[in-house]
Amino acid sequence: MEFKSEYKRRQDEVERGLEDQMEILEGKIPSELYKSMSYSLMAGGKRLRPVMLLEFSKFGSWDYKKAMPLACAMEMIHTYSLVHDDLPAMDNDDLRRGKPTNHKVYGENIAILAGDGLLNYSYETMIEGMASENPGYVLALREISRAAGVKGMIGGQVDDIKNEDVNIDIKTLDSINERKTGALIKASVLSGAYFSELDQDKIKNLEAYSDKMGLAFQIVDDILDVTGDVEKTGKKSGKDLENKKTTYPSVYGIEKSRKIVDGLYEKALINLKKAEADTEFLVKLTSFLCSRDY
Amino acid sequence: MEFKSEYKRRQDEVERGLEDQMEILEGKIPSELYKSMSYSLMAGGKRLRPVMLLEFSKFGSWDYKKAMPLACAMEMIHTYSLVHDDLPAMDNDDLRRGKPTNHKVYGENIAILAGDGLLNYSYETMIEGMASENPGYVLALREISRAAGVKGMIGGQVDDIKNEDVNIDIKTLDSINERKTGALIKASVLSGAYFSELDQDKIKNLEAYSDKMGLAFQIVDDILDVTGDVEKTGKKSGKDLENKKTTYPSVYGIEKSRKIVDGLYEKALINLKKAEADTEFLVKLTSFLCSRDY
Repeated sequence: MEFKSEYKRRQDEVERGLEDQMEILEGKIPSELYKSMSYSLMAGGKRLRPVMLLEFSKFGSWDYKKAMPLACAMEMIHTYSLVHDDLPAMDNDDLRRGKPTNHKVYGENIAILAGDGLLNYSYETMIEGMASENPGYVLALREISRAAGVKGMIGGQVDDIKNEDVNIDIKTLDSINERKTGALIKASVLSGAYFSELDQDKIKNLEAYSDKMGLAFQIVDDILDVTGDVEKTGKKSGKDLENKKTTYPSVYGIEKSRKIVDGLYEKALINLKKAEADTEFLVKLTSFLCSRDY
Repeated sequence: MEFKSEYKRRQDEVERGLEDQMEILEGKIPSELYKSMSYSLMAGGKRLRPVMLLEFSKFGSWDYKKAMPLACAMEMIHTYSLVHDDLPAMDNDDLRRGKPTNHKVYGENIAILAGDGLLNYSYETMIEGMASENPGYVLALREISRAAGVKGMIGGQVDDIKNEDVNIDIKTLDSINERKTGALIKASVLSGAYFSELDQDKIKNLEAYSDKMGLAFQIVDDILDVTGDVEKTGKKSGKDLENKKTTYPSVYGIEKSRKIVDGLYEKALINLKKAEADTEFLVKLTSFLCSRDY
């Protein structure tokens, strides 16, 4: 089957999972809050993190559908971070996924609370789903909570704020990328791997895979901020230059950055194949992520 | 022993628990983020919720100290909600617990992320502490996650925003209070009760107790907003009148509001005593909460 339709099928599955989670809240919370949460959560998007999480949850003998609460939670965490990131006091963005940002539609106060709501609901969702007998579920939950936290994504966001108007070296930049974007990508891979109860060696390999993927994903994002088409990316381009941010393209230029992505892709594939499982779709996904134009 | 010193001893225990949790992060997250989180979390405060949670965790045969991660998490959740609540886009407050609010010191962007960080760290803390063999721990975790969420506290905050410049009836006001303040108070009681593995009848009684206590606590807060001394409360008075908010004092006046608190107190005590446990301290605590001047 072609990659696009294979991806679409998985994306739709996540979409239904998210719809189910939101349906639980409908009519039970203030309608403005419900609308604001739905507006950002159901705004499309690639659903990359939950798709990856579910895919790695198929490696073991457990029914991967039991990992759906983890997958949905991952997307809620990603979405809340975007809603808060777009706020006037943060990046002050007007456009996200091709639509006005949450606070532009619902106001700053509701956007803050909708973000808080999505973060909290991600945990409610994961905790409700914990009935599963799979001991890997709790390990996955722990992995996600760490990645989303101050040692992971939130810490990366704080350091990223300081990465404006200043020159930082590549080591610092890598450390920011690793946490700001890499942490959730890595947690998507590893929480799936924990759910599948893979052994330590395989988990180490997938950790190496996800480290490379996370960095490649961020570099492609930064390249798209320079070369991207707003019609395709759904967000304004040229922001990094405007904010004088250090990025791979700002340091190495576009062409060399692309070569670095290619190198990461090759190495990531080697690690992925060591998983000794059906990685056919994941190989295509990895290739797509490194060559995407949105 | 006198109530004050009994309370102080418990408060200090919580203080040490919170210090331990923050120490784990020291040097491992961006220093500005660490300072901002500590600033609000370690700013004193009554520590009412964790003190209650631990007290109700003593009712069963489990070592109540194993409930410390839940207690700390409860205070982190309470604190993050205050940090976000004080933001310019929300209540725009300058003073909290007698000190400048978080965003006044660290800026809005860091305050938003510190709030997010505290919320996420509350779950990390609870999940790390889950090693315990006590099946009541997970029920407590679930109770807390629901209370903190959009059906609980966050939903109450959204409806509370709309309770400005408009007249709402007592039923709507009660529903806001139940969620905005009551949900976390109730969860402090119930999560302790779950941790103690109390039977359904006792839990029902404690639910009734906490419903009354939560409402009484909020009415006392609203009375203090009218009559309180900033030196004691640590926050500006007269805000509800300024924002034309409907409260018990605005509807019934101070004297009748105090009588309502007395009535709730009497009823709460009857429910509390049905717990058939050592409630000596809790009786004094309930009395204090209904008659406090800060």
